[in-house]
Amino acid sequence: MLCVHSFLRRASCNSLPLAVQRSVLRAFSVHLQNQAAEEAANPPSPQLRANAKTENLILKTPKGTRDFSPKQMAIREKIFSTIISCFKRHGAVTIDTPVFELKDLLLDGHWEESKLVYDLKDQGGEELSLRYDLTVPFARYLAMNRITNFKRYHIAKVYRRDQPTMARGRYREFCQCDLDIAGNYDPMIPDAECLKVMHEILSALQCGEFLIKINDRRILNGIFRVCGVPDVKFETTCSTLDKLGKVSWAEVKREMVQEKGLLPEAAESIGQYVQLSGGWQLIHQLCQDPMLSKSQLAMEGLEDMKLLFEYLTLFGIIDQVSLDLSLARGLDYYSGLIYEAVLLHQPNSHCKEPLPVDSVAGGGRYDGLVASFGQKGQKVPCVGVSIGVERLFSVIEQQLELSKEKIRTKETQVLVAAAQKDFLAGRMKLIAELWDAGIKVVMLRGGMVGNGVSLLNQLQYCEEAGIPLVAIIGQQEMDNGVVKLRDVATRKEIDVPKENLIEEIKKGLEK
Amino acid sequence: MLCVHSFLRRASCNSLPLAVQRSVLRAFSVHLQNQAAEEAANPPSPQLRANAKTENLILKTPKGTRDFSPKQMAIREKIFSTIISCFKRHGAVTIDTPVFELKDLLLDGHWEESKLVYDLKDQGGEELSLRYDLTVPFARYLAMNRITNFKRYHIAKVYRRDQPTMARGRYREFCQCDLDIAGNYDPMIPDAECLKVMHEILSALQCGEFLIKINDRRILNGIFRVCGVPDVKFETTCSTLDKLGKVSWAEVKREMVQEKGLLPEAAESIGQYVQLSGGWQLIHQLCQDPMLSKSQLAMEGLEDMKLLFEYLTLFGIIDQVSLDLSLARGLDYYSGLIYEAVLLHQPNSHCKEPLPVDSVAGGGRYDGLVASFGQKGQKVPCVGVSIGVERLFSVIEQQLELSKEKIRTKETQVLVAAAQKDFLAGRMKLIAELWDAGIKVVMLRGGMVGNGVSLLNQLQYCEEAGIPLVAIIGQQEMDNGVVKLRDVATRKEIDVPKENLIEEIKKGLEK
Repeated sequence: MLCVHSFLRRASCNSLPLAVQRSVLRAFSVHLQNQAAEEAANPPSPQLRANAKTENLILKTPKGTRDFSPKQMAIREKIFSTIISCFKRHGAVTIDTPVFELKDLLLDGHWEESKLVYDLKDQGGEELSLRYDLTVPFARYLAMNRITNFKRYHIAKVYRRDQPTMARGRYREFCQCDLDIAGNYDPMIPDAECLKVMHEILSALQCGEFLIKINDRRILNGIFRVCGVPDVKFETTCSTLDKLGKVSWAEVKREMVQEKGLLPEAAESIGQYVQLSGGWQLIHQLCQDPMLSKSQLAMEGLEDMKLLFEYLTLFGIIDQVSLDLSLARGLDYYSGLIYEAVLLHQPNSHCKEPLPVDSVAGGGRYDGLVASFGQKGQKVPCVGVSIGVERLFSVIEQQLELSKEKIRTKETQVLVAAAQKDFLAGRMKLIAELWDAGIKVVMLRGGMVGNGVSLLNQLQYCEEAGIPLVAIIGQQEMDNGVVKLRDVATRKEIDVPKENLIEEIKKGLEK
Repeated sequence: MLCVHSFLRRASCNSLPLAVQRSVLRAFSVHLQNQAAEEAANPPSPQLRANAKTENLILKTPKGTRDFSPKQMAIREKIFSTIISCFKRHGAVTIDTPVFELKDLLLDGHWEESKLVYDLKDQGGEELSLRYDLTVPFARYLAMNRITNFKRYHIAKVYRRDQPTMARGRYREFCQCDLDIAGNYDPMIPDAECLKVMHEILSALQCGEFLIKINDRRILNGIFRVCGVPDVKFETTCSTLDKLGKVSWAEVKREMVQEKGLLPEAAESIGQYVQLSGGWQLIHQLCQDPMLSKSQLAMEGLEDMKLLFEYLTLFGIIDQVSLDLSLARGLDYYSGLIYEAVLLHQPNSHCKEPLPVDSVAGGGRYDGLVASFGQKGQKVPCVGVSIGVERLFSVIEQQLELSKEKIRTKETQVLVAAAQKDFLAGRMKLIAELWDAGIKVVMLRGGMVGNGVSLLNQLQYCEEAGIPLVAIIGQQEMDNGVVKLRDVATRKEIDVPKENLIEEIKKGLEK
């Protein structure tokens, strides 16, 4: 029988590079390729079911949803960990809420969007809907538990029956990463912190330059009022204005007049305001605007905007911030400051069809939402930021694809190998000891190691998978009470007494 | 103006313990209590909505679901991290799939349980259902992507319209933590690894002693056959048998005869087998059983059981394993080995009403499920283990409650404080620098520091919240270009030049 020691000297040590020997051994490596197929689990197109119970059923995920492969999950986990560490740095704690809520509670915050809400079938019992965002469940949680001061983050999936545009990272099931600050603070202090959080995360994720657009619902409502829009039409005008950027001003104006029933001259005046953007100078200009200064609401918003600009200057992030009067934000519940971040350079501008710029983070102040759940006397002002992780994931996934950087999905530290078929029992005993010591260890399929050549294949697998150490047992090692420990990079081998193995492995991993 | 330095000497340094001064200062600490309320966010009972749009709506989560408070999330994250590190140690990678699937695909694995599946309302488009487990989506993923070899873990919520019994940790929305191994391996090798994983996790979570019951669907079917049950009634007989333990054998027998239509003598014979449990000796006894040895299927199962017992002995976990012929497992898709772990001692046996023992982990082999999705020629044998994290969470939560151990929900490292109201700008500038250096830092509500006493309150807050360092600025510090760094535990203070602050903080945190 070929002993491990002499085999290693003959076949795999340093005289020839493994790559040269590889072509000869290709025929033996089928099981290794199977193993490697795990890594490359990139979904091909959906397949027709052949023997399916329902013949014409397609094997796919529901419209607007997707699976994530191990490689994608590795990227996502890196993004989540960047986001979570920022949230924790700012002293936030996390909660979790159910994926569905009582329909009536959920719609409290989402009257405008109710047609996009997924309802559950009536199977007896309560009427339920899938959550549309994480803000309404947060407000429900605060109201239900009578909490008036809370800084929490929540990372979870939300559901919108929207028209999905997957290429732009817009899905019907998507993840939100929210930080919200509830409580009575001096004006604009938590608001400034939300913007700082947004800035820290977008900087850390290195998706390129970005701009944070800010506005205030009070300024917008002031503009609507001085332009002659009746109060009852503020929300609906706002939701039309939200489309600006995705469609032209001409189209927005048409909708305001023809669908929302605004007077043409009102829409015209609004247009003159909402196309303005800038910094300090714009704030001063608006404060002195003869029409706008008639609106106390707008003036309040502008005063707070000045304060916010001061704080953002102290935080060192003012250069990436712009007051943009076209920013409206879609959701009904916002009551004050609103904001949205966009990437300035399209990360895929070298591609044939550059994708339209979407916002990668957004949020705002919603001082009335918690009170709408009806807790007596409980007014809980809130402000929050939501990171658009799906869009960022698309961008980062593209960046990585272009850079050809290899993503490791596993962190295996040791492969337990044997040269002879007989050593399955020995390997199983050894691998259990290493697992119990907390070491990340695998062995290739049991019983398939039929001859000496396979050991070489096992070593080759380690090189390809980036596993740094191999623990090898064979007859000679068993007889001597040792395990052969091989450093995959240097190909150095030492015989380690069994009782010292874990210690030696830990030393080897520290290098 | 009172400078920080002299104030600290007068009011807070080591002459008097802070506790003595506390009672005097109680009146000033309202905002600190608000802050502390975050930590204690333990939901009281649901509240009636007062001003709600629908007057009689209750503010609650849907039936069978719950929120998790920050404290509960901290416990859960510890459990998840123990489980994930075990899965990774065994070389598994993770995937994610949508929370809902096409109804027809989902039901492939769950014909028996279809009444417990949550359906989505028909809002136009596809018929969708919430996932019932993570196994069927995994099999769908394998079939759709033509993957034949895969070791993956998946931690996510699943949904069952069951009768919830919350006290026992049984919910309609609950989390599953699954590891599955797909691929052609030598018999019982991945099966043994799943049991090893289960054993490692239950040991690491320290919930007390446990027993892993194992059985094999082939042995059960063999028993059914030799007892005279027609083949078509195997599955339904199995699902009745699954109730044994929750209800008495007499009740199970009644259901078999009266509801499932078995002959009374068949049920009687089954009863003689399924009440057996044991180790090696039972296996040998069954192999020689004159009736059972007529079933080739049962003999195959018993041969594999012998092999498994050998492997579990090598893994060093055989002492916690028992062959239990009453174990049936509820799900249709199991085809071979099945297993379930139970806690041996009721962790709450000191309580007035001890809870019935539920399984805390389970799983088995399902060699036919992937092929049922109809990929031509693709038979993908699978075996998996699912950790019952909700039940374990209940147990651990109870343990912690009894031990009065304090759970930290935040890891804040530094509080930025000032003695004077005027230093808001200084604090904001400083806190941003520390955030940018990656330090976990908070400040108490801006602008509420009205006088010297509040600094003491800020220090008190650090002691209570376990924040180790305080960075204090005041006029004198500003003038000297320093920040005062206070070690909360030792109450030692040093003046640190601003440019060295981050370095000094990092040193202080290493201690």
